[in-house]
Amino acid sequence: MNATPSADRTEAGAGAGEFQAIERWLGMMPAPLASGPYRAGDDAVWLKSPGALTISVDTIAEGVHFQRRWCSPQDLGWRSLQAALSDLAACRAQPVGFLLAVSVPANDFQDCSWLDGVIAGIGEAARHWDCPVLGGDTTSSPAGLVLSLTVIGQPLGAPLCRAGAQPGQLLQLSGRCGWAALAVESLLSAEAEPPEQLAARALQAWRRPCARLDLLNSLQTATAAIDISDGLLADAEHLSKASSCALLLDRQALLDPELIAVAGESRAANLTLTGGEDYELLICTSEPLEGFFTVGEVQEGKGVRWLSGERIEAQGIGGWVHGVSG
Amino acid sequence: MNATPSADRTEAGAGAGEFQAIERWLGMMPAPLASGPYRAGDDAVWLKSPGALTISVDTIAEGVHFQRRWCSPQDLGWRSLQAALSDLAACRAQPVGFLLAVSVPANDFQDCSWLDGVIAGIGEAARHWDCPVLGGDTTSSPAGLVLSLTVIGQPLGAPLCRAGAQPGQLLQLSGRCGWAALAVESLLSAEAEPPEQLAARALQAWRRPCARLDLLNSLQTATAAIDISDGLLADAEHLSKASSCALLLDRQALLDPELIAVAGESRAANLTLTGGEDYELLICTSEPLEGFFTVGEVQEGKGVRWLSGERIEAQGIGGWVHGVSG
Repeated sequence: MNATPSADRTEAGAGAGEFQAIERWLGMMPAPLASGPYRAGDDAVWLKSPGALTISVDTIAEGVHFQRRWCSPQDLGWRSLQAALSDLAACRAQPVGFLLAVSVPANDFQDCSWLDGVIAGIGEAARHWDCPVLGGDTTSSPAGLVLSLTVIGQPLGAPLCRAGAQPGQLLQLSGRCGWAALAVESLLSAEAEPPEQLAARALQAWRRPCARLDLLNSLQTATAAIDISDGLLADAEHLSKASSCALLLDRQALLDPELIAVAGESRAANLTLTGGEDYELLICTSEPLEGFFTVGEVQEGKGVRWLSGERIEAQGIGGWVHGVSG
Repeated sequence: MNATPSADRTEAGAGAGEFQAIERWLGMMPAPLASGPYRAGDDAVWLKSPGALTISVDTIAEGVHFQRRWCSPQDLGWRSLQAALSDLAACRAQPVGFLLAVSVPANDFQDCSWLDGVIAGIGEAARHWDCPVLGGDTTSSPAGLVLSLTVIGQPLGAPLCRAGAQPGQLLQLSGRCGWAALAVESLLSAEAEPPEQLAARALQAWRRPCARLDLLNSLQTATAAIDISDGLLADAEHLSKASSCALLLDRQALLDPELIAVAGESRAANLTLTGGEDYELLICTSEPLEGFFTVGEVQEGKGVRWLSGERIEAQGIGGWVHGVSG
């Protein structure tokens, strides 16, 4: 067991193997038809027929994505649904509802109080976005709580996905990143209670993220989007690859001066680029969009690098070094 | 940790509490509008607008629903998707695709061979039903493999659900039950390898179930349906309650003479009524339907009992005693 926020990606030795395994597994299964009534491979699948729905699934596991002492059960429930809904936001889809699959340790059925809190937090987020629960499955768990949330949305307009960036466009972001990862770093290093000196902003960022569904209207003219929950650098690379474009990040625009003030410039850069757990949107647009700020530009080519031309080097929480170059 | 096939229901003391907890949780979340474009509360949710899609989620957890020695990884993958698709069959929906959320123990990323087999089995089932993978999520697991499958289907005709039984109708079943539970009973009691004397039919029933999607056309005139994966008696009670009708089971028609020959009459009855893991369909229909056999009738009233008027008493694998009366 490990406890990094994205242990599945950052654990030593497993990162590349896992992505390879996923590629291999996809090859073992029938692929969506290229001309079919769906569009797979983005944050959420877009279903055209008979109308259009957007569906995505997101899993959170105890001991992997969180530990109980990190937050209240309500916070955990809130952030679980917000994280799932973030994928709908990235696809410019209005939530229709969600399905909840929950695997529960035996103890939590004997004393339901903690789990009740989790569900209450999910309900709070669901009410916030007017997103009813439409189904689900409940099972026992061999160890630790596992929540798997399937969210269903109705896309506004044409499908918005990762492929769609065009050279000459602006690269924009919906909010500052790195604060949630700062919280996770501190929570991981604390033996018992979270350290009091940890900035309240960081804890709030991790415990109470909000899917950027408030920006759906602003996204009308965006041509590509992704949520950066896996870490800005990794997700930018997904967008770059899907769009066959180079993405150039403006270091000064990207890094939050307030985060630098708290964590120092080098650590702030690492947290911003690789921390993950930020449910902001990275988009490509020809004109600045309301609610977003510019963090770089789209160019011909491939890969993700600094606007200065430098190679981006960043260290993840688990010690895994990203090195993504053009 | 326990290892019954439906530990979430049968574990001593947890059964009632869990159902109560689900009721309570539902009350904490915004409910679907009664006049909304969906129908929730059945095996799968039916989405009318903008067209119609049927979506369901099903979770299988290691140490809860299976142990690795019980079957090959391919079998496990096969049965995982078939189990999920069974909910679509019960709603008379043709599969459109599925999303796979998988939580994986660290060891299985280091040596992917077992997990590869699981995915291959899922792929085999997916090809069998022409049901492409449309998305998913992969995370680490704190302990044991957890698979959560979201299946999406296109309903044929009007929604078919649990509410819809009418007094005077036939109660029909799509196949014999109890064999899969016989396998689980034997596998649970075996220390190491499954006993050779276990009937091959039982092992096959557990390892290679098939969603009854082959019967979609036959279901055209059915007015209520449910899959009996949670155990025939429990699922019959769900149908009875949703339809506000009594269901009367014909003991002689229901019990498989071949299962009685292998297991004895009393054990065969328990396995058939409470075993679960059978992915057959229980339906209500005015005329006998092709592919189904009659196991009882629908009457005015409530509850589930023998056609003879006797109360049904049955003992589940975990020692949990069902007692369902009118």
